[in-house]
Amino acid sequence: MRQHRKTPDMAHDIASEVSPKAGDRIEELSTPRPIIDEDRLAGNITRVQSYMDQHGLNFRPHIKTHKIPALARAQVAAGAKGINCQKVTEAEAFADAGFEDILITFNILGAEKLVRLAALNDRISGLKVVADSTVTVDGLSAWFAERKPLTVLVECDTGGARCGVQTPEQAAGLGKHIAGKPGLVFGGLMSYPKPSNAAATQAFLAESVALLKKEGIDCPIVSNGGTPSLFEAHLVPAATEHRAGTYIYNDRSMVRAGHCREEDCAMHILATVVSRPTEDRAVIDAGSKALTSDLLGFADYGHVVEYPEAVIKGLSEEHGVIDLTNCKGARPQIGDKIRIIPNHTCVVSNLFDQMVFHRDGVVTRVEDVAARGLVW
Amino acid sequence: MRQHRKTPDMAHDIASEVSPKAGDRIEELSTPRPIIDEDRLAGNITRVQSYMDQHGLNFRPHIKTHKIPALARAQVAAGAKGINCQKVTEAEAFADAGFEDILITFNILGAEKLVRLAALNDRISGLKVVADSTVTVDGLSAWFAERKPLTVLVECDTGGARCGVQTPEQAAGLGKHIAGKPGLVFGGLMSYPKPSNAAATQAFLAESVALLKKEGIDCPIVSNGGTPSLFEAHLVPAATEHRAGTYIYNDRSMVRAGHCREEDCAMHILATVVSRPTEDRAVIDAGSKALTSDLLGFADYGHVVEYPEAVIKGLSEEHGVIDLTNCKGARPQIGDKIRIIPNHTCVVSNLFDQMVFHRDGVVTRVEDVAARGLVW
Repeated sequence: MRQHRKTPDMAHDIASEVSPKAGDRIEELSTPRPIIDEDRLAGNITRVQSYMDQHGLNFRPHIKTHKIPALARAQVAAGAKGINCQKVTEAEAFADAGFEDILITFNILGAEKLVRLAALNDRISGLKVVADSTVTVDGLSAWFAERKPLTVLVECDTGGARCGVQTPEQAAGLGKHIAGKPGLVFGGLMSYPKPSNAAATQAFLAESVALLKKEGIDCPIVSNGGTPSLFEAHLVPAATEHRAGTYIYNDRSMVRAGHCREEDCAMHILATVVSRPTEDRAVIDAGSKALTSDLLGFADYGHVVEYPEAVIKGLSEEHGVIDLTNCKGARPQIGDKIRIIPNHTCVVSNLFDQMVFHRDGVVTRVEDVAARGLVW
Repeated sequence: MRQHRKTPDMAHDIASEVSPKAGDRIEELSTPRPIIDEDRLAGNITRVQSYMDQHGLNFRPHIKTHKIPALARAQVAAGAKGINCQKVTEAEAFADAGFEDILITFNILGAEKLVRLAALNDRISGLKVVADSTVTVDGLSAWFAERKPLTVLVECDTGGARCGVQTPEQAAGLGKHIAGKPGLVFGGLMSYPKPSNAAATQAFLAESVALLKKEGIDCPIVSNGGTPSLFEAHLVPAATEHRAGTYIYNDRSMVRAGHCREEDCAMHILATVVSRPTEDRAVIDAGSKALTSDLLGFADYGHVVEYPEAVIKGLSEEHGVIDLTNCKGARPQIGDKIRIIPNHTCVVSNLFDQMVFHRDGVVTRVEDVAARGLVW
């Protein structure tokens, strides 16, 4: 809690109300606020880990979705082999929480990040990063040549069109380059493919592994990723592990992708109807600073559980404007609280310092979002 | 700074590098990170305040854009009459910083917010809120009847299609209702109009004032708002004051609206090119967790100053994918730092705990974003 929330002229009972406590009812919480259903959360962890176990795949959850060490501990307790971070600072936060096997799936560049990366590598046993260019690799090598060696995987673009080398030949070439560089250990391959791309990903990764093998270079890790097509991970047998983040909370985009059902969505945004200016318009206190503007191809900004025909057609920063035109039955009244399944959970987590968990509407715990807002 | 950034096994020089310091060069800062140009900031404050002074309008800056008390102090020092907040918690943070004249332009509902609102009203002299329904007004009255009275303005929908009563008759009726309610003082009218809507706003507000006058009820404040058409504020003479937030930083949407020039944009997102997978693709380390997904009608996610023909065509959370197809000249290389004018500054402020200011590329100061991420 920040200092200014504890001003001396605020009554003690107000200050203590800032944080929800176990036992509180969620409908009494101030809004807007994301809430996490414990049973759905546990169900999501179990379902995905069981699938990975069934197919003999190592599983590496991506913590960007929740940024909460207690949830990563639950994922590891269920059987996950390690964790995936996207930033050095996220990895620091999770190293502080005791995690040792951390893959940072990012090209690390720049003096300040390298300083921090080396300090992190010195204090945990299983740090790994990725690279897709000799610029990144040579920068890492220059820094780590006189230090504890750093493990580096080659990032491969198997169709995701983000980062990554473009061909198996380039993957093998960069892998060989890493293997020959002082201060670096070649760790294998990594891909973040587009959904429903198992065949192309398998072909790319298998050929890269084969080319490296010809050079006498093994790939200890071949890391594939993504939630939308997670249950097709076994169709990429070249991979030794799979990474996924969103599956732990799930969201509207994952329902659409067929990954889960609406009743598997563990995160809701609790919001209050603050205005009903017209018969067909409701305004809630959740705007782009609570739901974010992520559309992910949807025409509106979230799914209202209680009024499924309602359309969240516009967001300003602290207001959401809902079109009720299609609502056939009852319509929300001023003061009513509603629950929204966000289009994208991972960006919502990044807006809030704390996350409230509940079971059947009763608060079970409040967790700090430990890695929220870390700059890089 | 958070506890986990100060782990004992991190070298002191690393910990001290977490926060930029005055005198640092911005091109040496880790990315992604928003930076604020001091001279542009000062120019924006002066230009808008001069316009308001010239037209005899009181000016009430909206702090949602920056959430930083030092900037609100600069706005008040330039001549602003008070400040505008959107949440009770924002108002608390600014009351802690010494501000007394605060208008919260939101319908406040719910026990926890009312408890905090009353505590806030007890400790500052000029707290005001808005309401657009008898539900909100009656809830405020029930809470404040036995307390220090609260000033309430009627929110009017003069074309913005968000909150607000729909007609001058409704405005006058709700104003009369407030004036007759125990615990409340009628404070006047407030509108957040759509841009370029001066005539309709003037007509609505003037008629509402006249109807209330017939009932013997004065409107001490008639508050109009918005940055895009800010320089048309004098076309609404019924207003006694104008509110605006975005003008202090400005952004790509304000350039498009004709409010400012590109060289008036005080906020840039500093980002590093981390990958060049193909001839036409660059990937930067600023994604939706730095730029946000706010499109505001644009086809891409920001304007790259150094490569104006580049198109930031896609964001994932920590990556921005840039299409360089249209770039005729030099193209960015891996490791290059670029500056991006965001589509929308106000949502960027809400993602970062600190804001770095600079003059001619040298850091001048680092301010905590005091009201960032306050839940409601």
